[in-house]
Amino acid sequence: MQIVVPETITAVVNTGDDFELHGLYIAPDLDIVTCTLAGLIDQVQGWGIVGDTAECMEWLGKLGGPTWFKLGDRDLALHIRRTALLRSGWTLSAVADSFRQSLGVTIRILPMSDTPVPTHIITSVGEMHFEEYFVQRRAADEVLAVRSVGIAEARPAPGVLEAIVEAEAILLAPSNPIVSIGPIIGIPGVRAALRETSAPIVAVSPIVGGAAIKGPAVPLMRASGVEPTALGIAGHYADFLDVLVIDTVDAALAPAIEALGVRAVVTDTIMHGAAEKAALARVALAAARAV
Amino acid sequence: MQIVVPETITAVVNTGDDFELHGLYIAPDLDIVTCTLAGLIDQVQGWGIVGDTAECMEWLGKLGGPTWFKLGDRDLALHIRRTALLRSGWTLSAVADSFRQSLGVTIRILPMSDTPVPTHIITSVGEMHFEEYFVQRRAADEVLAVRSVGIAEARPAPGVLEAIVEAEAILLAPSNPIVSIGPIIGIPGVRAALRETSAPIVAVSPIVGGAAIKGPAVPLMRASGVEPTALGIAGHYADFLDVLVIDTVDAALAPAIEALGVRAVVTDTIMHGAAEKAALARVALAAARAV
Repeated sequence: MQIVVPETITAVVNTGDDFELHGLYIAPDLDIVTCTLAGLIDQVQGWGIVGDTAECMEWLGKLGGPTWFKLGDRDLALHIRRTALLRSGWTLSAVADSFRQSLGVTIRILPMSDTPVPTHIITSVGEMHFEEYFVQRRAADEVLAVRSVGIAEARPAPGVLEAIVEAEAILLAPSNPIVSIGPIIGIPGVRAALRETSAPIVAVSPIVGGAAIKGPAVPLMRASGVEPTALGIAGHYADFLDVLVIDTVDAALAPAIEALGVRAVVTDTIMHGAAEKAALARVALAAARAV
Repeated sequence: MQIVVPETITAVVNTGDDFELHGLYIAPDLDIVTCTLAGLIDQVQGWGIVGDTAECMEWLGKLGGPTWFKLGDRDLALHIRRTALLRSGWTLSAVADSFRQSLGVTIRILPMSDTPVPTHIITSVGEMHFEEYFVQRRAADEVLAVRSVGIAEARPAPGVLEAIVEAEAILLAPSNPIVSIGPIIGIPGVRAALRETSAPIVAVSPIVGGAAIKGPAVPLMRASGVEPTALGIAGHYADFLDVLVIDTVDAALAPAIEALGVRAVVTDTIMHGAAEKAALARVALAAARAV
């Protein structure tokens, strides 16, 4: 259910979740985006490759390796090949571009940066990588703060700033504002480019009725001083955002959002399938065109 | 069909075949020995883990990775875990010991050295790693010479010299004398220990009727100046060998072998199953005890 020509789209992807396990460079968000666009994603679990097996993982466990982060056999090919290419001197951007081409994706995929910027969660039991907090410990620890290690020295990957400046429209997905969108807009130069671009910028609120559609957005927003509401989202992005698409259950927040200088568009934002995803994308694009 | 208590056996294993592919440290001989002793080897192909699948390999190929060296999904767990442990500072010996324990092997397994000593084959089309010559190019090139890179500076792994000196008996398997046994006895100190040990040393000839049981032993022996016969084997090991077990088809070579100071024991040496393997091991052990 294509509503825009794929070749004209650039996806800028968070790499704050990237980490090393089994000596392999794992890039969860790049892989989820690439495999989703390739039609390969396991729709049930929301990550991994459909029909994948877990023979290698089982044997890594037999050999005493960590097993808390599940890696499918097909999935592992991406991590093994990416790690080998990175060690031989490729940039993460070059690997991401090679993979999307190998898997038949025509949308351009850019990591936010070629420099590692791991997201750490500071909890009441200590500081840990986001994936340890989220997957290994099931987001059970009290969150005190979130930090992006090394972000002040990171540079946007080649093409990221140009994509923002030259865009016809920019869409922020209804993703976690702290650990998914946050690292991208925290890379030096990105937020300034968002402020300066002439492209309309539309976000879809990931918070509906004060709760996250999925994942631990609420405690992470609270720990970052962002109110876990659609209004909090608007305030967090207000310096560059033109339009916030919010759910009908949050319609009462529209005046407060608009008081921040952000236009509020109210619609059904909870997507259950391709048709609802396409409808929401159409609303967001129409809102961009109306700016 | 156990004929010796496993806990009393030490296997010293060639690592000249070890190489890096996909950024992974692959140790073909250590894995074949460990998986064979664990009862996990794929008996049909002679390497790899029985029942293994190749999902990851297929996807490595899709992503543009090399596919000439087949790696099963279970198999890959050994390479991934070994590489991660080596990178974190473990020695190859420590990894080998951990793996054999994880897989329930009670025979002690020692790599010949913790230092990489890759076997290179110098062919008429250039110098290449043994696995490139053997697997990628199917041993089709003319062999000019064989060299073990870095062997002069390598040291035996911890326990190797002690195992030789303290052994009750030493058995050289009917393996390729140039690229399987050769690197082990070429590690500085090993050949001297074999000469000095009071243990009887018995080899089984890998050459029967002037041909190798399997693999490219004949051209590799020729290129190394070793006559590809059981007599050539005896001459190659004569400085330390007490007994050479030869096949009945080579019985006429016995007097020439014994003239080198090596006792020749003539028997059926071609093993088709566990019973024949046990019978040959019994002959070799009896020959050792008779020294």
